Amino acid sequence: MTSARTRVRRLPEKQVRDLEAMHAILDAAYVAQVGISVDGQPFVVPMACARDGDHLLLHGSTGSRLMRTLAEGGPVCVSVLHLDGLVYARSAFESSMNYRSATILGVAEQVPDDEMLPALERLTEHLFPGRWAELRPPKKKELAATLVIRVPLDEWSVKVGEGYGEDDPDDLDETVWAGVVPLATVAGQPEDAPDLKSGQVRGRPPGCG
Amino acid sequence: MTSARTRVRRLPEKQVRDLEAMHAILDAAYVAQVGISVDGQPFVVPMACARDGDHLLLHGSTGSRLMRTLAEGGPVCVSVLHLDGLVYARSAFESSMNYRSATILGVAEQVPDDEMLPALERLTEHLFPGRWAELRPPKKKELAATLVIRVPLDEWSVKVGEGYGEDDPDDLDETVWAGVVPLATVAGQPEDAPDLKSGQVRGRPPGCG
Repeated sequence: MTSARTRVRRLPEKQVRDLEAMHAILDAAYVAQVGISVDGQPFVVPMACARDGDHLLLHGSTGSRLMRTLAEGGPVCVSVLHLDGLVYARSAFESSMNYRSATILGVAEQVPDDEMLPALERLTEHLFPGRWAELRPPKKKELAATLVIRVPLDEWSVKVGEGYGEDDPDDLDETVWAGVVPLATVAGQPEDAPDLKSGQVRGRPPGCG
Repeated sequence: MTSARTRVRRLPEKQVRDLEAMHAILDAAYVAQVGISVDGQPFVVPMACARDGDHLLLHGSTGSRLMRTLAEGGPVCVSVLHLDGLVYARSAFESSMNYRSATILGVAEQVPDDEMLPALERLTEHLFPGRWAELRPPKKKELAATLVIRVPLDEWSVKVGEGYGEDDPDDLDETVWAGVVPLATVAGQPEDAPDLKSGQVRGRPPGCG
């Protein structure tokens, strides 16, 4: 839902109001940049994230100031960005980037103890698909050291920049090249841990020979 | 310089105090996540960035609330992240990501009018190397619509996660695979703008046939 606070003022033609588009941006992200404010000073911290229905899950140590601030319900802003390309226009002014960006405002809450296991499963499965079933269950002391936080996906905005530069008509005859250099994040071949023992192959990600 | 505010409390063994490491992280980034606080509400906005010596440059529209807040010298937090890999450990608890992360706290200032052109050149050249010389100079109305901001690189922290999972000794005999799936951002082949005219080839980025 777009509120007065999340209405896009700059380049409003790039705003997308589609819930599925927001979900897709979050679902393609491993990391969110999480902003809190402490006595007027903003702090922005990158954190692993996973969408769980209409919430975004984050997790961290019970010893983290950020996590405790979030658990206590301070206002939060979460920014997720995918950079898709460098847009070479015919002027510096119109040169830009292609991207998909989601911003969420809200108040976080701690996931209660009896919902922690499914939340951790969701986080693990988002980052490491299929892994939860391959790993031993979390130990009590591990759960006790972990805070899981959720941010409701109620107040959000999405901006998408795509396509080519929108050059000023006066610039269209410049002899300079115009176009896009696409950017993408790609996964390489899995690399075995140096202490991997013979037979430790269960759950090896695809692509590993 | 690390201050009490930028001392790394969580996983302090990942903190790097090397100025060159911080510079390298910024120099490898197209985008920074810029956090401000407005009446206690954090806002985090992705912005193109370029390091210029001991400052980080940002730019945007004079009509942007974020840019005006920055120009007025409100406290800012800038977060830059490079995600380098997914770390498959032998437990969910030790599973993590490899990354290089820089965080800058400070007060931004507006770049004065007589330094705007070199600052815009720096931003353009960082994102589009070699491009500034190929493009016509900015027009007065374009400069008038642009704010350039710089954040001093005085108070910062760097965290780097690398290598493999640090499994609990009890888990080393689990039969599950352990290792890293590397992640990287790669540029694809340049794509011509649909309105590119014959002969508009000057400054075409390398890699385009």
